[in-house]
Amino acid sequence: MSEGAALEEFLAQSRERVDSDLRDSLPAETEPPAELHRAMRYAVFSGGKRLRPGLAFGAAVAAGADPECATPVAGAVELVHAYSLVHDDLPALDDDDERRGRPTVHVAFGEATAILVGDSLLAEAFAQVARLPEPAAAAAASSGLARAASSTALVGGQVDDLAFVPAEADLESVTSIHLRKTAALFRFAVWGGGVAAGLEAAPLERLDGFGRAYGLAFQLADDLDDADLSECSILHVLSAEQARGRARELLQRAVREIEPFGSDAWALAGLAKRLEGQLPSNP
Amino acid sequence: MSEGAALEEFLAQSRERVDSDLRDSLPAETEPPAELHRAMRYAVFSGGKRLRPGLAFGAAVAAGADPECATPVAGAVELVHAYSLVHDDLPALDDDDERRGRPTVHVAFGEATAILVGDSLLAEAFAQVARLPEPAAAAAASSGLARAASSTALVGGQVDDLAFVPAEADLESVTSIHLRKTAALFRFAVWGGGVAAGLEAAPLERLDGFGRAYGLAFQLADDLDDADLSECSILHVLSAEQARGRARELLQRAVREIEPFGSDAWALAGLAKRLEGQLPSNP
Repeated sequence: MSEGAALEEFLAQSRERVDSDLRDSLPAETEPPAELHRAMRYAVFSGGKRLRPGLAFGAAVAAGADPECATPVAGAVELVHAYSLVHDDLPALDDDDERRGRPTVHVAFGEATAILVGDSLLAEAFAQVARLPEPAAAAAASSGLARAASSTALVGGQVDDLAFVPAEADLESVTSIHLRKTAALFRFAVWGGGVAAGLEAAPLERLDGFGRAYGLAFQLADDLDDADLSECSILHVLSAEQARGRARELLQRAVREIEPFGSDAWALAGLAKRLEGQLPSNP
Repeated sequence: MSEGAALEEFLAQSRERVDSDLRDSLPAETEPPAELHRAMRYAVFSGGKRLRPGLAFGAAVAAGADPECATPVAGAVELVHAYSLVHDDLPALDDDDERRGRPTVHVAFGEATAILVGDSLLAEAFAQVARLPEPAAAAAASSGLARAASSTALVGGQVDDLAFVPAEADLESVTSIHLRKTAALFRFAVWGGGVAAGLEAAPLERLDGFGRAYGLAFQLADDLDDADLSECSILHVLSAEQARGRARELLQRAVREIEPFGSDAWALAGLAKRLEGQLPSNP
């Protein structure tokens, strides 16, 4: 199997693993309140690529562990991602009616339910990491997830994104938003996969560095892909060519971070390479 | 000092301990996004009685421990309580403009900020329990908090409360809402105080039983206090006299649950007795 084919196979298995686990562990649609539980599953099973779970599993593999051990972390990160999209789409925030070709949760189920779906998914994410069998790993992962989802990370980035003023933007302010709104959760995914695999502080720091660089590059790719300049975008402060160069640099830095893991880090390195190959050339 | 005066002193100390800890541990108002952090503190420091923290500290004392050890649990339960009020007050939910004589968070700071304040406080609650020094206690408390805040507990109770139809109510359906919307968090407070104190499964079950009975009685007292029959209330299915009798019974059951702790459980027993004394006699 080629390197690329092995990576696609790995991603497909990651998706299947996390989806099957979430299908089993989320409250059943028949459990009351049934409407809430239907809406939670609508939000979670919406055709996402499950890239963050793939990174969590890739980190476990880099640590020499069975990827399976990172399933609670992979599920948690996907639930936080899903919650943040449901709340971001609300009328008071981004006011989006559609996501991935379907009505958003508040359009399909009403605003009250959408708010409570987000709240429930966030709580459920912590129930996921609490399932890690080693108490020290469960406690560390829970702490890291709380940090990633906090007002100084994910939520703070969203707040500053909403208040973004293009005329005042510079590379530092845009990067600060990207670090919190996007990279924080990628960092948690990769670091958390290592925590689930039982890694010590020094290799965990390497994984965190990978997640940080990868997450920033991911957001640059997203900005290059979406020319909507009414929102925070790197294209307010860099040309497309500069942004591509910066993303490439970040991905090379990401790969350097995981060199100590050797060939075990093949999936993480592959994901960085894959993202580099996907950088839009004509924004 | 009389029993009553000792309990009031204990409650005042509990309030001071949890408030001082939250003042130190929540992100500073100067930290960006400053507006979000101001709004978070506005929501948390709003003149609440800190009864749930008092119960968490009371449980630690019952376990023979220094109440201080339960501070992360006390802070967490208060943050979840605060988050749930901020989201409940939103226009799409209860649409309340005032709480404790002040504008609600969405009135004072806007709806987007109110949604994100609630999200941040929920994440912050998990950061609090993650501070418990014993990893097994931190992991257990995090798991219990996730359960209490979940779609099958706190959030599910709120959903069924919003959809409540007085004509269809019976004792079972009203109690099911009370158990989830109110008692789940009281249970976590008392049980979590025991977890922080390092208790084993059997005494923890006793504390959980106390929290369950106390929480149900608390909601009955609240219903007796507030004659708003447009919402879910025990007064749809019981007379005021019956509801008072039921609350008294629940509080006696609560006290029986903690008998094995002997005189160490003085604060919990005192809180049950105090609530019995506060049951409104003329609803």
